[in-house]
Amino acid sequence: MSKYFLGIDLGGTFTKYCVMDADGMPSATSAVATNLKEGQKGLVGQITAGIRDTLAQNNISSDNCLGIGIGAPGPLSIKEGKIIAAPNMQFMSNCPLRDLISNELGISATLENDANAAAFGEYLCGSGQGVESMVLLTLGTGIGSGIIIDGKILHGSHDMGGEVGHIIVEVDGDECGCGQKGCFERYCSATFIAGRAGQLVKKEGYPGILGKILKEKGQLTSKDVMEAANKGDGLAEEFWNKSLHYLALGCIDICRILDPDKIVLAGGMTKAGEHLIKPLLKHFQQLHWTQTDIKTEIVIGKLGNDAGVIGAAGVARAKFSE
Amino acid sequence: MSKYFLGIDLGGTFTKYCVMDADGMPSATSAVATNLKEGQKGLVGQITAGIRDTLAQNNISSDNCLGIGIGAPGPLSIKEGKIIAAPNMQFMSNCPLRDLISNELGISATLENDANAAAFGEYLCGSGQGVESMVLLTLGTGIGSGIIIDGKILHGSHDMGGEVGHIIVEVDGDECGCGQKGCFERYCSATFIAGRAGQLVKKEGYPGILGKILKEKGQLTSKDVMEAANKGDGLAEEFWNKSLHYLALGCIDICRILDPDKIVLAGGMTKAGEHLIKPLLKHFQQLHWTQTDIKTEIVIGKLGNDAGVIGAAGVARAKFSE
Repeated sequence: MSKYFLGIDLGGTFTKYCVMDADGMPSATSAVATNLKEGQKGLVGQITAGIRDTLAQNNISSDNCLGIGIGAPGPLSIKEGKIIAAPNMQFMSNCPLRDLISNELGISATLENDANAAAFGEYLCGSGQGVESMVLLTLGTGIGSGIIIDGKILHGSHDMGGEVGHIIVEVDGDECGCGQKGCFERYCSATFIAGRAGQLVKKEGYPGILGKILKEKGQLTSKDVMEAANKGDGLAEEFWNKSLHYLALGCIDICRILDPDKIVLAGGMTKAGEHLIKPLLKHFQQLHWTQTDIKTEIVIGKLGNDAGVIGAAGVARAKFSE
Repeated sequence: MSKYFLGIDLGGTFTKYCVMDADGMPSATSAVATNLKEGQKGLVGQITAGIRDTLAQNNISSDNCLGIGIGAPGPLSIKEGKIIAAPNMQFMSNCPLRDLISNELGISATLENDANAAAFGEYLCGSGQGVESMVLLTLGTGIGSGIIIDGKILHGSHDMGGEVGHIIVEVDGDECGCGQKGCFERYCSATFIAGRAGQLVKKEGYPGILGKILKEKGQLTSKDVMEAANKGDGLAEEFWNKSLHYLALGCIDICRILDPDKIVLAGGMTKAGEHLIKPLLKHFQQLHWTQTDIKTEIVIGKLGNDAGVIGAAGVARAKFSE
C-alpha cells in the first residue's frame, strides 16, 4: 500500500492542505478560510476536520498517512511543537498545536515555521529543485525568509534563524515592529514600498502618475509604484530603484554569509517579473565584490502561495519516511 | 596501535603544525617561519618536511597518521584541493596543494579555508565546545570568519560562505579591497580602527592622548585607541564606541540569519578583554530586537593563534576517521 504525508499551511486568512506521496510528488492543494472566531479549540477542530477531509478526498486511510507537517507563523518552538506567539491569531499563543493534532488523529506530526516551510517547498518542487542550498525571500507585508543548507532547513540553535528580513541595512534607520532600527524589510518589502511611496507623494504635493493614483484610490501598492516607474514617473522610478538597491544589498549579505546556489524571490512583488529581476540584477552586479564572479542565481519562485503547504508536506516526508 | 591526524596552518608569516589523537585531543603546536623565498616548490618541500618532523617528534609512523588537514588562506577550492589565489604568497596561486602533499607523503589530505579551520578549532577544543552552532570572528587586519552549523563547517555552494567580514553595514560606505563598499571589516577590524583613528587625529590637529602617541610612534594600534578611550580621551572614546557599535551590528545580522549558540571573538583586538566585551554587549543589547530575549552568547576565544592548526587537524579527523 502506498504511503503518504500531509501538509498544512496555517495562515491568518486561509489554511491550506495537500498530500505528498512517498516519492515527493504533491497533490493539488485546497484552501479554506481560517476559523478565527471560535478560539483555539475552534481552530484546532477545523484543522483536524480539514485533515480528515483531505485524506478522504485523496482516498488515503489514516494508517497510510505517515506524518503531518504543520507550517505556522512564528515565533514557535519546533522542539516542543508549540506556537509561542501569533500576532494575527492571538488565541493561538502558547498552543501545543503539534500534539493536539497528533493526539486527535493518531498520526505523527511536526511543526515548522511557515517561511521555512515555503523555502523547503521551493527547494523540493519549485525553483530550488536540484540545488544544494538556497534562500527564499518572500516580499510581502514584511520579508519572510527561509534558508536551506545541504537540503536541510537552517533553524538556528533557538529556532530563530533565517530571519533575513531583520538584518540591519541602515545604521540608526527606520524603526521596525521587531524593536530594531534599519531592518531590511523596512526598505524593500511590498508593504513598505507602497506606504513610503505614498508618504513621499503626499509630501511632494501629489505630482505625476503616482499622485493621480493616490488621489483616485486613496492608497498605493508596490505594483502601482513599479508601473509608474516603467511609465517614466520620476519619483516612482527613483523610489523603485532605491528599494531594489536595498534588496540587492540584502542579497549580497546572503551571499557573503551563506553563498547559496540560488536566492528565490516570492510574494506579491514578484508579479512584476522582469521589471523586478532585471533592475535587481543590475544593482546586485554593481554591489557584488570583484573577488570572484557572481555564482549565486537570483530567480522568482515557481510555486506561488502553494510553496508553504507543499513544503510542510515535505517536512513531514523528510521526518517520517520509513 | 593508536591512530592520529595532523593539522597544518599555512600563514603568511608562520606555518604551524600539530597532531590530534583519535579522541580529538590535540598535541602542543609548533611553528616555523614560512619559506616565502623559494617559490611553490620550496614551500611545498618545507611543508612536507615539517609534517615528517612533526610525526617523528610525536613518535607517529606515517601508517598511523590517517589524514592531514591543511588550513590555508583563500579563496580556494575545497573540492579540488587547490589554492585559487593567495595575496600574501602569490606563487601559491592555482597550487594543487592537497594532492602535492598527499602524493609526496602517501597520506590522505584535505584543504580547508584557514578562517573556517580556526572556527572548527574553537568549536572542538575552545570556546565553542559543546555547542550546536557558532560563528568565529577574527578581528585582525580584516575580519576573518568561519561558521559552524550542527557541528559542520558551512562552506556555501561555491566554497565562498562564511565571509561575514564582507557583509555591507553602510550603504555606499568606505571602499573595501574586495571591490564592495561599506564592508563590515572596514568599520571594526583592528587595522581599520587604528588607521582611521590615526587619520582622524591628524585631521583634528593632534589633540589629546592619541595625538601624543601618534607623534611619538608615527602610527596607532587598536590597543592605543582602546587604552586612550579608557583614560577618558574624548576622541578615542567616541571612535572606540563607534567601532563597537558596528561590531555589535554585525553580531545582530549573524543572529538574525544563523541564530548560533555563540559568537566567538578572536584576533589581536580581543586582548582588550573586558574593555571590548562589556561595551560590545551593551551595544548588542541596544540593537537587539525585542521579539525574543538575547540567546546568543558573545565570548572571547580560548585558543588564540592555535585555533587554526588545531581546527585543521580536527577537519582531518572528521573526514578520515575510520
